[in-house]
Amino acid sequence: MAKDVFTQFKEHSVAEFFKKNKQMLGFSGKIRSLTTIVHELVTNSLDAAEEGRILPDIVVEVSEINKDEGRYLVHIEDNGTGIPEKLIGKALGMMLAGTKFHRYVQQRGQQGIGAAGVTMYSQLTTGKSVKVISGYKGKKVTCEVLIDIRTNKPKVNILNREPSEWHGLIYEAEVKDVKYDKSSYGVYEYLKRTALANPHASITFLDPLGERHIFPRSVDVIPPKPKPVKPHPLGISTSDLIDFAHYSKEPTLSSFFRNTFSRISQLKLDELRNYLPDINFRMKPRMLSWEQADRIVSVFKKIKWISPSSDGIYPIGEKQIKKSIYNILNPEFCEVVERKPKIYRGGIPFIVEVGLAYGGDAGRKIGSSRNGDVIRFANRAPLLFDAGGCGITDAVKSIDWKRYGIKNFDDAPITLIINVSSVHIPYTGAGKQALSSEQDLVDEIRNAIMDVARKMQIHIRGKVRERERATKIKSILKYVEQLSMDLAELADYSERDKINKKLIKLVEIKYSKTKKHNDNESESDNRSVD
Amino acid sequence: MAKDVFTQFKEHSVAEFFKKNKQMLGFSGKIRSLTTIVHELVTNSLDAAEEGRILPDIVVEVSEINKDEGRYLVHIEDNGTGIPEKLIGKALGMMLAGTKFHRYVQQRGQQGIGAAGVTMYSQLTTGKSVKVISGYKGKKVTCEVLIDIRTNKPKVNILNREPSEWHGLIYEAEVKDVKYDKSSYGVYEYLKRTALANPHASITFLDPLGERHIFPRSVDVIPPKPKPVKPHPLGISTSDLIDFAHYSKEPTLSSFFRNTFSRISQLKLDELRNYLPDINFRMKPRMLSWEQADRIVSVFKKIKWISPSSDGIYPIGEKQIKKSIYNILNPEFCEVVERKPKIYRGGIPFIVEVGLAYGGDAGRKIGSSRNGDVIRFANRAPLLFDAGGCGITDAVKSIDWKRYGIKNFDDAPITLIINVSSVHIPYTGAGKQALSSEQDLVDEIRNAIMDVARKMQIHIRGKVRERERATKIKSILKYVEQLSMDLAELADYSERDKINKKLIKLVEIKYSKTKKHNDNESESDNRSVD
Repeated sequence: MAKDVFTQFKEHSVAEFFKKNKQMLGFSGKIRSLTTIVHELVTNSLDAAEEGRILPDIVVEVSEINKDEGRYLVHIEDNGTGIPEKLIGKALGMMLAGTKFHRYVQQRGQQGIGAAGVTMYSQLTTGKSVKVISGYKGKKVTCEVLIDIRTNKPKVNILNREPSEWHGLIYEAEVKDVKYDKSSYGVYEYLKRTALANPHASITFLDPLGERHIFPRSVDVIPPKPKPVKPHPLGISTSDLIDFAHYSKEPTLSSFFRNTFSRISQLKLDELRNYLPDINFRMKPRMLSWEQADRIVSVFKKIKWISPSSDGIYPIGEKQIKKSIYNILNPEFCEVVERKPKIYRGGIPFIVEVGLAYGGDAGRKIGSSRNGDVIRFANRAPLLFDAGGCGITDAVKSIDWKRYGIKNFDDAPITLIINVSSVHIPYTGAGKQALSSEQDLVDEIRNAIMDVARKMQIHIRGKVRERERATKIKSILKYVEQLSMDLAELADYSERDKINKKLIKLVEIKYSKTKKHNDNESESDNRSVD
Repeated sequence: MAKDVFTQFKEHSVAEFFKKNKQMLGFSGKIRSLTTIVHELVTNSLDAAEEGRILPDIVVEVSEINKDEGRYLVHIEDNGTGIPEKLIGKALGMMLAGTKFHRYVQQRGQQGIGAAGVTMYSQLTTGKSVKVISGYKGKKVTCEVLIDIRTNKPKVNILNREPSEWHGLIYEAEVKDVKYDKSSYGVYEYLKRTALANPHASITFLDPLGERHIFPRSVDVIPPKPKPVKPHPLGISTSDLIDFAHYSKEPTLSSFFRNTFSRISQLKLDELRNYLPDINFRMKPRMLSWEQADRIVSVFKKIKWISPSSDGIYPIGEKQIKKSIYNILNPEFCEVVERKPKIYRGGIPFIVEVGLAYGGDAGRKIGSSRNGDVIRFANRAPLLFDAGGCGITDAVKSIDWKRYGIKNFDDAPITLIINVSSVHIPYTGAGKQALSSEQDLVDEIRNAIMDVARKMQIHIRGKVRERERATKIKSILKYVEQLSMDLAELADYSERDKINKKLIKLVEIKYSKTKKHNDNESESDNRSVD
């Protein structure tokens, strides 16, 4: 009986795995599936433009073929570098293949699964291949791409080759079992948020109803080319160190350290040596044993390091977030903070940005009230789904909002815009919609939120005090009228107006002084709170 | 410049992917990582016992090696079938290999990733191989297993072979960066919940503090051997149909339909033929075109089918859930429902069970109050993490608890035990801790919760009415004393006691009648609500 089951022992391809578990790639639910398709292709387009130092022009067209079947044609066109002919198949029809996975570089895509997943989804729902036109280095190639799911190998059928100066990529897929909806989880909202975080991109969206939405470029500066960064010693694991050492071509452990990791100066190297007198720093890196690596890693944790460089990391920027918030939400109060780079697990640097809008159109409108809203980004790509399982949400929930003058975040007219930038985002799944709740990340996001929340508290306190003061002045002024009449009777009746004015001025001066004094006080109060 | 990046184009193994994205396998956070290790191995042990028709005896031992480093030794021993020598490596040191992934059968593991993931985690954190002893068919093999991450191939070092009648598996891994904690997310709670849903298993846990916890077997019946089931035509996708057809060895389309899918009788076949007069049912299945398959699938959706058989699906059982609830929670009220099998996407049958406990020790104790608690299972394996992103949680949240006499679920002394059984659970990630929010699933869980909530409402209403009645009787009885005295004065004084008793009886009869009447009424009221 036991034999039975082992005769059925089999090996499977990663494509088979994701075919059976499409939901892990974001293909669950009709609206989400369509958004996933656009998400995977647009992030690739933005990455390709940045890589090629091009201001991205992206056109997304979704057209309805048969609404009842949920059959749509998705057409995405960019002006990026294109893909060389021999790599088109692997890039778009093979999972776990690409230029991003092994490099330590900030990009939106990072797994080499996304686009191949879309190709597979199209094929699984319609039986058709996707159509691709790539303009790369003077040649324009038109072809069809399929993925052989049992082997995870691409099948490419070249239709045409011609010389052309055009560069870019056109990807066209027919898909079924999807749905277009202008909801907050749909393609429209996805592209709107993408534009918000990528002001250098021009995005045109033609929706299935025939409407054309243009999200114009608002900044004419090409973001810096994403730069692979060296890992920071802090938090690197023994296994990583062994991997780096055994594949290193450096002649000695010393040069390996200096050239493989960031922040290892000659001074730091001497410090390392002092801690590890029995390790020969002139040995070949590939001779490093697990036991030695283990000890080196524990010394890494003892030494004081300069924070990782933020060279390879490009956040959206305070100015841009503020601009976007004022454009879209027209808030009563707005504050943005960009924190210093930090690191998490394995020496991976990251930067957190948080923008807070209060009042005006901030918050998610529900009926006549506005509820607290969180707009999440990772490397400038919007995260629309899986909010419940996201470390960003955990950070927002961990805040004691009462301390900042907000009774209940869920009922407050607040929008938080949170962007995490890193050379490696720890997504909870291959669908890339939520961040794992790594403690270092959650803590840092939490700190950033508290930064802006403190500023908001001052604003709210000011408002409350302003209201109280207005009430006080009003009640005092009631008596002023009577008082000035009484005083005028004692003195000269013609003085009444003069006395009245003087008294009003007195009240006003007194209360405006109190105001200034209190504000200063509350700010210093506050700073001591955390 | 563009050339640069494409020279770095590479293919990666699935092991490399999960090495870089350990969090997707459940390796994030020290407590969770340790729980994940135990989870993966214990589910394999339970599956192996069921497969071999054995009452499982499982011993889990976690011992501390170095607390500061988070270094522990995890030792898991079962009395299952063991693994044949030639498959030990692939089963425990290779991802996407195993007996479960491609079969349509209810088991806890279903991906062929879990155990290899644990082997990789041990190796990544300690540099060591795992130690395995397998007793299979009269031979006991002792070996060490590693995983070559760059190729996703196992490396096995056989240490000893000897004849032995013992069958089972011992798996021992040293791991770092984990933490033992008796919290609700830890190993202890995991095993406690496993025992709750697997009463046929005997589980012994030796914790790092030297304490021995025994969860004894409470049912001596081996659960039925999990049986691969045929897919149900309802909801099958065109791509699935093409796959089945092209790999089928049946001579005709007719025999292919009858033998590949469940619920296709001769009568249904005739119905299919009537809908599709131009398709030749005598053709070879591998000749089926996409267009034809597409039309067959849409006819599948038009025909009325018998629900899928629940043959292959084994829920915990109402009786057992009730027993567990009374044992653990000692509630004031308890109700359990096992719903009929339903299907979701691709004709996959599933069964939902929900147990509700109210009052007593139900709910999660926080300070002096008790908050609503949800204990989730999938195929009898506890889901401890990612509650926020789970379809079960979505279903609980979608309930309007006020309709059932509960102001706020979060503040109510309620425990919900929810188990979803299926031949394929749509997990949101490879870490298998949350169910994707597939509409069919969420709706069915919601319906099941409403079933038990209605019963609870009757109980709560009854309690409220009982309290009101008690108050009324009390206030009426106050007057009885006086009234009987007055009446006695008018009549014979010696009659006072008699009159008093008669009046009390009168009141009691009247109110007990009202009680019965009202209860009947409220129940029928209720049934008409949904």
